[in-house]
Amino acid sequence: MTLEMLDKAVRRVPDFPKPGILFYDITGVLVNPDALKFCIEQMIEKYKDVKFDAVAGVESRGFIFAAPFAEKLGIPLVLIRKKGKLPGETYQCSYSLEYGTATIEVHKADIKKGGRYLVVDDLIATGGTLAAAKNLIEQGGGEVTDFFGVIGLPALNYKSVLAPCNVTTLINYDGE
Amino acid sequence: MTLEMLDKAVRRVPDFPKPGILFYDITGVLVNPDALKFCIEQMIEKYKDVKFDAVAGVESRGFIFAAPFAEKLGIPLVLIRKKGKLPGETYQCSYSLEYGTATIEVHKADIKKGGRYLVVDDLIATGGTLAAAKNLIEQGGGEVTDFFGVIGLPALNYKSVLAPCNVTTLINYDGE
Repeated sequence: MTLEMLDKAVRRVPDFPKPGILFYDITGVLVNPDALKFCIEQMIEKYKDVKFDAVAGVESRGFIFAAPFAEKLGIPLVLIRKKGKLPGETYQCSYSLEYGTATIEVHKADIKKGGRYLVVDDLIATGGTLAAAKNLIEQGGGEVTDFFGVIGLPALNYKSVLAPCNVTTLINYDGE
Repeated sequence: MTLEMLDKAVRRVPDFPKPGILFYDITGVLVNPDALKFCIEQMIEKYKDVKFDAVAGVESRGFIFAAPFAEKLGIPLVLIRKKGKLPGETYQCSYSLEYGTATIEVHKADIKKGGRYLVVDDLIATGGTLAAAKNLIEQGGGEVTDFFGVIGLPALNYKSVLAPCNVTTLINYDGE
């Protein structure tokens, strides 16, 4: 498996979720066992010299890459979820969408003061959700040092939104 | 790690999502690396003599257990998602909730005729969502032979709803 083959496994769906948007769909990667394994191996390789106290997965496709990574490294997996899904006491952060706002949450009990966190999603576009995830972790006294996405859309400027954290992606697409 | 320790890692949250319901929350398992690893090891052990062509994870907590299992076994991971999330052509199935109905979907391209599927969720209660997931896979000519949940609530009668498929859970809770 190579990055070129991973790229071929990503499905392109025009006009989703609305006209004019080209959607990069990770499900083609998931049904390709070599491609999924490659993504997890790449994560482990890229972070082999970094020590995280936990990995946070962003609902819901972030869970798919965060869970095997957490399991292999033997570190806690923290869920970043949409408002109303977590039953315990939470930190909350709202952020702007194109129309309106969204709120995400994390269990207060799951964030350790002084802990170093990697935040994982499948695709990084504007970085708005990930910046909110960072805010949640910081509310609990944790530190986000790194963000990971299988796919990055750097033209949408996530690097400046997420600076000074490190952002790692496996494949980048431009222009959409 | 033992089943008794796994049980201790499951958080109990009374009156969620509404008064009178005791919610069994898997996030306590996820932040306990030994407990998460134990769950995945148990899945592999329980299915060591069964051949699945793919594993289907039910949005969104099912993804957390389905993804490491698929990655370790080197089999495709299929996403069962709530309506409107998948960009490609889908099979759809609606099912009854306490109030109203819900619809779940799967990509048509991801279901193989004659394939044998394991369907995974974190918790199995009434079995309604899992029965709908089975229907989706059967629409594509696949066969669901097994269901897996970390937690089962057998008093809610999922075994009869999901018969004749095999249902495997690691911990069962009664009476709520």
